[in-house]
Parts: sequence; C-alpha cells; structure tokens
Amino acid sequence: MSGAGLAVAELIRRIAQSTGGSLSANLRGADCRVERTAPLSTAGATDLAFLANSRYRAQAAASAAGAIVLSEKDAAALFGDAAARCALVECSEPYAWFAFAAQLLAPVETLVPAIDPRAQVAAAAQVHSQARIDVGAVIDDGAQIDSNVWIGAGCFVGRDCRIGAGTRLYPGVCLMAGTVLGERCIVHSGAVLGADGFGFAPFQGRWIKIPQTGRVLVGNDVEIGANTTIDRGAMGDTVIEDGVKMDNQIQIGHNCRIGAHSVLAGCVGIAGSAVVGRGVQLGGAAMVLGHLSIADGAVISSGTLVSRTITEAGFYTGFFPLMKNRDWERNAAVLRSLEELRNRVRALESEQRGRQERKDPT
Amino acid sequence: MSGAGLAVAELIRRIAQSTGGSLSANLRGADCRVERTAPLSTAGATDLAFLANSRYRAQAAASAAGAIVLSEKDAAALFGDAAARCALVECSEPYAWFAFAAQLLAPVETLVPAIDPRAQVAAAAQVHSQARIDVGAVIDDGAQIDSNVWIGAGCFVGRDCRIGAGTRLYPGVCLMAGTVLGERCIVHSGAVLGADGFGFAPFQGRWIKIPQTGRVLVGNDVEIGANTTIDRGAMGDTVIEDGVKMDNQIQIGHNCRIGAHSVLAGCVGIAGSAVVGRGVQLGGAAMVLGHLSIADGAVISSGTLVSRTITEAGFYTGFFPLMKNRDWERNAAVLRSLEELRNRVRALESEQRGRQERKDPT
Amino acid sequence: MSGAGLAVAELIRRIAQSTGGSLSANLRGADCRVERTAPLSTAGATDLAFLANSRYRAQAAASAAGAIVLSEKDAAALFGDAAARCALVECSEPYAWFAFAAQLLAPVETLVPAIDPRAQVAAAAQVHSQARIDVGAVIDDGAQIDSNVWIGAGCFVGRDCRIGAGTRLYPGVCLMAGTVLGERCIVHSGAVLGADGFGFAPFQGRWIKIPQTGRVLVGNDVEIGANTTIDRGAMGDTVIEDGVKMDNQIQIGHNCRIGAHSVLAGCVGIAGSAVVGRGVQLGGAAMVLGHLSIADGAVISSGTLVSRTITEAGFYTGFFPLMKNRDWERNAAVLRSLEELRNRVRALESEQRGRQERKDPT
Repeated sequence: MSGAGLAVAELIRRIAQSTGGSLSANLRGADCRVERTAPLSTAGATDLAFLANSRYRAQAAASAAGAIVLSEKDAAALFGDAAARCALVECSEPYAWFAFAAQLLAPVETLVPAIDPRAQVAAAAQVHSQARIDVGAVIDDGAQIDSNVWIGAGCFVGRDCRIGAGTRLYPGVCLMAGTVLGERCIVHSGAVLGADGFGFAPFQGRWIKIPQTGRVLVGNDVEIGANTTIDRGAMGDTVIEDGVKMDNQIQIGHNCRIGAHSVLAGCVGIAGSAVVGRGVQLGGAAMVLGHLSIADGAVISSGTLVSRTITEAGFYTGFFPLMKNRDWERNAAVLRSLEELRNRVRALESEQRGRQERKDPT
Repeated sequence: MSGAGLAVAELIRRIAQSTGGSLSANLRGADCRVERTAPLSTAGATDLAFLANSRYRAQAAASAAGAIVLSEKDAAALFGDAAARCALVECSEPYAWFAFAAQLLAPVETLVPAIDPRAQVAAAAQVHSQARIDVGAVIDDGAQIDSNVWIGAGCFVGRDCRIGAGTRLYPGVCLMAGTVLGERCIVHSGAVLGADGFGFAPFQGRWIKIPQTGRVLVGNDVEIGANTTIDRGAMGDTVIEDGVKMDNQIQIGHNCRIGAHSVLAGCVGIAGSAVVGRGVQLGGAAMVLGHLSIADGAVISSGTLVSRTITEAGFYTGFFPLMKNRDWERNAAVLRSLEELRNRVRALESEQRGRQERKDPT
Repeated sequence: MSGAGLAVAELIRRIAQSTGGSLSANLRGADCRVERTAPLSTAGATDLAFLANSRYRAQAAASAAGAIVLSEKDAAALFGDAAARCALVECSEPYAWFAFAAQLLAPVETLVPAIDPRAQVAAAAQVHSQARIDVGAVIDDGAQIDSNVWIGAGCFVGRDCRIGAGTRLYPGVCLMAGTVLGERCIVHSGAVLGADGFGFAPFQGRWIKIPQTGRVLVGNDVEIGANTTIDRGAMGDTVIEDGVKMDNQIQIGHNCRIGAHSVLAGCVGIAGSAVVGRGVQLGGAAMVLGHLSIADGAVISSGTLVSRTITEAGFYTGFFPLMKNRDWERNAAVLRSLEELRNRVRALESEQRGRQERKDPT
C-alpha cells in the first residue's frame, strides 16, 4: 500500500516532468525524504506541508515539517536569506504543487484485475480483462467495462452502460441503463446516475408520468460524491462535461448540462434543463432553478438560490445573513413590509421636495 | 424492448379510450407513424414533439418533427388554414396528451416473473408467482409481495413489509420493517423508507432515544426519487397518500402526512409531524418546519422555508434574491439593522407631523 | 419480539434504578399494566402517553390512556386532588421519563450472533463470536467487529475499520477504509462514512485531486441517519464525538469536528474543517461554512446559513420569511436596493438636521 517516501528533489523532478515543465519548483536547503503530507501544525520530520495563504505564515515558521512548499514571497518573508530548519520548495503555485506531491506520496491501491465469483456479470456484457469487479456487483446486458475499471462491491451497472478506462466506482454505486462514464472518473458510494428525471403532466388533478428516455453522459476525469444523484434526460441527455468535480448529496435534474471543470460543493441542487457554464463554482447548498443558464466562470456563494440566468462571470450571493434570533425577528418583521417602508420614505421625500419648492419657487 | 412506432391516429384513438374520452384530440394533416418523442428542436420525421407554451411557437414553426401536439389556438396562430409540413394533433391539453403518447411509445421493459437464485427470500415471506426478485435482493420474514412487483438487485425488504401489485423498486432500495407500499408505485435507487424518525428527549446533557415504532404507509401510484428518505412514525405512522410524486434527495420526517397528488421537487425537506395538503406543490429545496400544516393546493417556491402554517391555497415565496456579491454585502449590512432603519423613518415622520401641526394648529 | 407489557410502578422502579436515582417519579392513582406508548389522542387503556407541554392539557384531560406521565404542576392543574381516570406518573422531566419507558416497552430485536454464509468476511478481518453479519455484507481485510455488533444486509465495511460493541449498521451502510465507530452507535441505511473529502487544487483551468488520507472517527452512542454522508479527513481526521445525534440526508465535510451531544436535524450541511461545539443544536437544512466554529450550546434555526464563527451560546437565525409571492416580489425588489433606501433616509435626516440648525443656530 504505502511507499517508503520520496526525496523532495525527486518530487520536484517528477512533477515538473508530469506537467510538461509547467509546474517547476526550486529546492532551498538540504534535500530530505518525505513519506506523507501533513498540516503545518502537526507535521513532523518526514512530512511535507504547504503554505498557500500568507495568513498562516506563523504556523509555517513554527512548523516541524521536514519540507514546506510555499511561494518565493512567503519564503523570503519567513526566512530571508537565512537557512530554514526544513527543506523549502519554492513554487509559484504551491497548492497545486502540493496536490501533485500528495498524489505521488499517497498509498496506491493496486488494481488486481478479477471478476469476483459472487459478482453477477451478464453474458452479453463486455468486461475488459484488466478490469476488476468486486463481490455482489451486478453488470447487466450490453454493459461495456474498459481496462483498469474498478467496480466496487454491490454496485449496479445497468443495461448498455459504458465505463471508460481507469474509472472507479466505490461500493454501492448505481448506474441505471444507458449511463456513460468517461475515463479516470471516480464515483463515490451511494451515488445514483440515470434514475428517472422528474417529469409529469397535470391532468384532472393527478400527474401523468412522462417516460424518461434520455441518458446520463459523463466525460473524463469527473468526480462524483457520495449519495449524489444525476437524473437521466427526459428525451435528450443529461451531460456532465470533462473535469467536473461534484461533492456529496448533490442533485442534478434531467437534461442539465454542467460545463467542463466546474466545481459543485456539497448539497447543491440543479433543477431540470439548467445549463451551467465551464469553470463555474457553486458553493455548498447553492440551488439553481430549471431552464436557466450560468455564464462560464461565475462563482455562486453557498446557500444562494439562482433564480435567473447569469449572463456574465462574477461573484453572486443571495443568502439571509445570520443574526441573533431576537434581531432576526425584528428585522424580518420589517422585511415583511419593506415595500411599505420604501413608500413611507417616498412620501417623506415628496413632502420635502414640496417644502423646498415652496421656499424656492423659481 | 422498443416497438416499431404507432400511427398518430392510432395514438389519438388509444388515448381517448384510456382516458374514457376525456382527452380527445383532432388530427390535422396527413397521418404518419411516430416512433418516439423528441424536443421540437431536434425532432425528425418519425418523432412526436409538443408545444405547450406559446413562447416556443417559433421552434414549432421550424421543427422537422413528424407530428406535433399543440393547442388549437397555437395551431391556428402558426399555420392558419394552411397545411403544416407535419401532422398536427390539436388538443386542449397538449402536454397531458403528450405524456400519454410518450408512455405508449416508450420502450416497455417486460417483467419476467422469477426469483433470482442469489436473492434471499425468507421462508415466511409471501411472494406472488407473477413477481420478480432480482439478484442480491433480501426479502425478510412476513413480507408480502404482490403480482407484477419488480424488486431490483440488492434491494432490502424488511420484516412484514407489504408491496402492492405492479410496484417497482429499482436496485438498492431499502424498505425497513413494516413499510407498506400501494400499487403501481415506483421507488428509485437508494431511497430508504422506514428508517427511524429523529426523536430524542434531553436528559442531563445527553439525548435519550425514543424508539420509533410507527410505520411508513404509501398509497397507490406514488413515485419516490433516488436517495429520498421517508422516516417511520414515532408512535403513529408516516403517511404518503395516493398519487404523490417525489423527486430525489427528499427527506420526510416521522409522522408527516403528504396529501394525495402533491408534488415535491428535489431536495425538499419536511420536518416531523407536518401535514401537507392535497395537490400541494413544493419547489426544489423548499423546507417545511415540524408540526405545521399546508393547505390543499398551496404552491411553495423553491428555496422557501415554510415556518408557519399555511391556511389557504396560494403562491408563497421566501428566498433571498440573488445579487452581485458586492451589492449583497451592502444590502445585507442594512438588513442586519433594518428595524433601526424603520425607526429612523418613524422619527422623520413624527418630526414631519409635528411640523405640520405647528403650521396648522386647528 | 414484543413483551406482555409492564406495570407502571415497575417502570418507575426500573427507570429510577437505571438512572442511578436521578429520574424518579411518583405514581398517583391505581397502578396498571401498559403495553406500549401512544399519543394522548389515540391512546387506549393499555397505552402510556405523555404530557410535556402544557398547551396539550386538554388532550390529556380527554385522553383514554391507561397511564400518563406529566409534571406535578400539570397534574395538579388537570386533576387537582381528584382521582384521574388513569394512572398518573408525576415526574420533573416527563419527556425524558417517557423516553426511558418507551425503550423498556419497545419490542426488542434479539441479536442472534451469526455470520450469514452469503456475507463475505475477509480472512484477515476479526469478527467477535457474539457479532452478527447479515447476508451480502462485505467485511474487508483488517476490519475489527466487536461483540453484539449487528451488520445489516449488504453493508460494506472497508479495510481496517473498527466497530465497537453493541453498534448496529442497518442494511446498505458503507464504511470506507479506516473508519472507526464507537460503542452502541446506530447507523441507518444508505449512510456513507469515509468517502473522500472534497479537496482539489486549481491548476491551469482544471482541478488536481488532493488524496484524502485521513479517517472518520465516531465516538460512542452516536446515531447517524439514513443517507447521511461523513467524509474522511484530508490529512487529519473527521471527528464525531460521543452522543451526537444526526438525522437523515446530512453532509459533513472533511476534517470537521462535531462536539459531544450535539444534535443535527435533517438535511444539515457542514463544510470542511468546521468545528461545532458540544451540545449545539442545528435545525433542519442549516448550513455551516467551512473553517468556522460554533460555540458550545449554540442553537441554530432551520434553514440558516452560518457564515461566520459563533463565539457564544445563543439562539441564531437567518432565513428569509415566508410571504405571499406577490408580497415577496415587492419586498424583494426593495431589498435589492436596500442600501440605496438607507441612503435616502440619511439624506432626509441630514436635511432635517440642517433645518433644525437653521431654526436654532446656537
């Protein structure tokens, strides 16, 4: 599982190489071997820590970490020309460098290809010889499982699903018929992709179900959190583009499109047919109404309801500020008649204007 | 799975018949065969599309659909007396007609009755000979499964549950002991019905669990979304009446009653002992506090917290409007002292009245 | 399953004993045998009901319950010195007493220790001889399952998990590798503990995953609701202290700490690294932003977003009040320019001050 660690200089070399030279770093001080990552406050001699926010400089100064990745500016501010106690990795993007380093240091679970005898793989499913299907998983007719896919215990992969190379389903994931997942995706336990969208027509006081015949199409490098749900399209498909990262407990309605490299924090809900642009950031529990669109790069605060289309990037917010309950009761009472308060201000202004006109009847 | 399609005239005939003549439609133009439904924008010659909102007339005019269902008024506005390129289905309720047509055109999954040898059915459970139990499902003692029930892979059906004819559980549904489901219900993957309600009594700084001994009772024609949870009653039962439609990620607390034909969009939460009337519509992420009631036919906007009983039908809203973050910060700051602002307006008004009285001392 | 009931005097004796005498009660009227609990309104001659809120005195007066637990004050108000129709249990904390009594009356599911032959227990897992593992459960290498643990059907217990004595996992729970659960915990169906936290570093327009190598550590007597998710720590651990009670559909981000005996109602979301104190109460759908802390004993209303650290106990609220939609539209419109309204009031005040100074040029 775990490696014996890596020299910091070796980490620098490997990350530069894997990023085609675009993430270089400079080692300052003696090289050392690090075995894992740790926060500045608890790191020890064989740990790599990071400083990405100058507010934590004091923690970095006091840290017992074996190596710290940080910006040149923070390094200079903290240590000047003096030698630091530990190895310093100077890098223009310390947090990204740290992420790559953490991947290199993390224990690797090697995928041993095998189909567990207690999994049930339909005769008409195609499972790559280098895939792994764990106990209790069900792979239905027509499903295609590519190499290095790992299907966890008790997963359900419905008819005609396709799962791209290197994708991992943790235990208890359900992919309903026709769902397509790209390569190197990660789907956490309890996620359900491809359940019916919520489509009903009212008729004589009851609701007539509209069969949901579209699919869920997920691109490459997408991560989907635990117990998240993504509904199949009503007629067309629901589409999650490359590189999207979704946290837990998210709900994506039918026929949504989530643009590439957007990030959705926990408990987000997106109603049907909404179009979220590329590189959008949705804070926790943000909600998006149906049939809207959100411009590329927009950032939505936690707890905000997006009730209209957002046509340009920017930072948007809409939650009620926290108050002591007594203050809330008083302020909320006024809020309930805010328009009336505005009208009273208007009346005062009008009276004032009248007075000024009387004084100054030009 | 899929049929070869149906003639439009045949669809009209069947829908009129199945609705006892209450949903009739008129075919205008030449009849044609349609194989499936599609949106106006992407439909082709063998597709049926619908126009239910006059805002999309331009799309209908440009559509290559083989047939379009729409209102007489939209048909007249679009095509006058001229022949349309496609078959027109004139109907007073085009969306409902489309829903019925979509059901007739959708691929039908035929239920082949069988108990998978890798399902575990308790000796004391009763499973109808025309039911289907898939691999890995567990049916506990005393459970009763009626005809044409389909229990998906890995479902858990607890002790003494009862499931009515024609109901389908998708893979990975959990019904805890004593849960009762009516006929023709659909429960999507990951839904949990009958987990303990949240009931604790405070005692000396800790919480004493109150055993939850009620059940979950679900009527006929109810649909329950993926990863939705409905808790068992504390002492009495939690009741979901006929025809209720619930989306994904919904939470229903113990001892709630949800009235017939209500619709609950995704991420709704309803706290314990709340009573939701008949035909209520709850928008996405709407929340209802405990022990309240909501009148029949009320409509609650998305993101709204229902904090008091609603005694009459109507359209209710309560979410903070979306703003640019800078505007939000300024407005929220004033909101935090809104009562004080109201008091300042009062002071101005009082001063103004004093001035007027001094001027006009009747 | 069910007992034949208990005499009220015996309940009083047992509860006094089990609480070390700290929860005593006084029996007034003739003793009787009760078999189960019921609400005041529906209780019959063999039922125990409770009156904990004086608002329901009329219900108590009319109740046909065999026994009612209530405060001395309510008893006096209701029955004075006269004999009640039923046995009265006078107690200073009637709701807590009722909870203990309900536990004594509730049907007990006896745990028959056994490993179902269709469960899969890894050779390197340690399962206590007095534990029960149901059909389809998977216990991975290195897991340790203590006595009287009950692992429901289809649960997944990952590598090196530890589960303390008397803890119960309902069907379909997933514990990812390394998760530690204390004693006497209850985890409801669909809960996922230990999925990856949501940690990514931005780099060149995409997101680099930071491996999540911490764990989830849960104390004793914790209850976790259906479909709730608790993420593993990024580097350190996510910690749920003793006696915490969590409802359904809750999301706890990586590296959070939830203090002992806090209660979290349904749909709560807590972002990463937040620290919730001891005895905190979070109402349904309350959201807590990351890296904040909430003081011991604070109470947060339903639907409230906690966007700043709360340093002292108290009752905090922040949700938009419910309005008729027409009123909301008008009030929300003013709210969008609330700062401007404040400025207009300032201008009026300034004008007024100017007028007063002109009048009274001291």
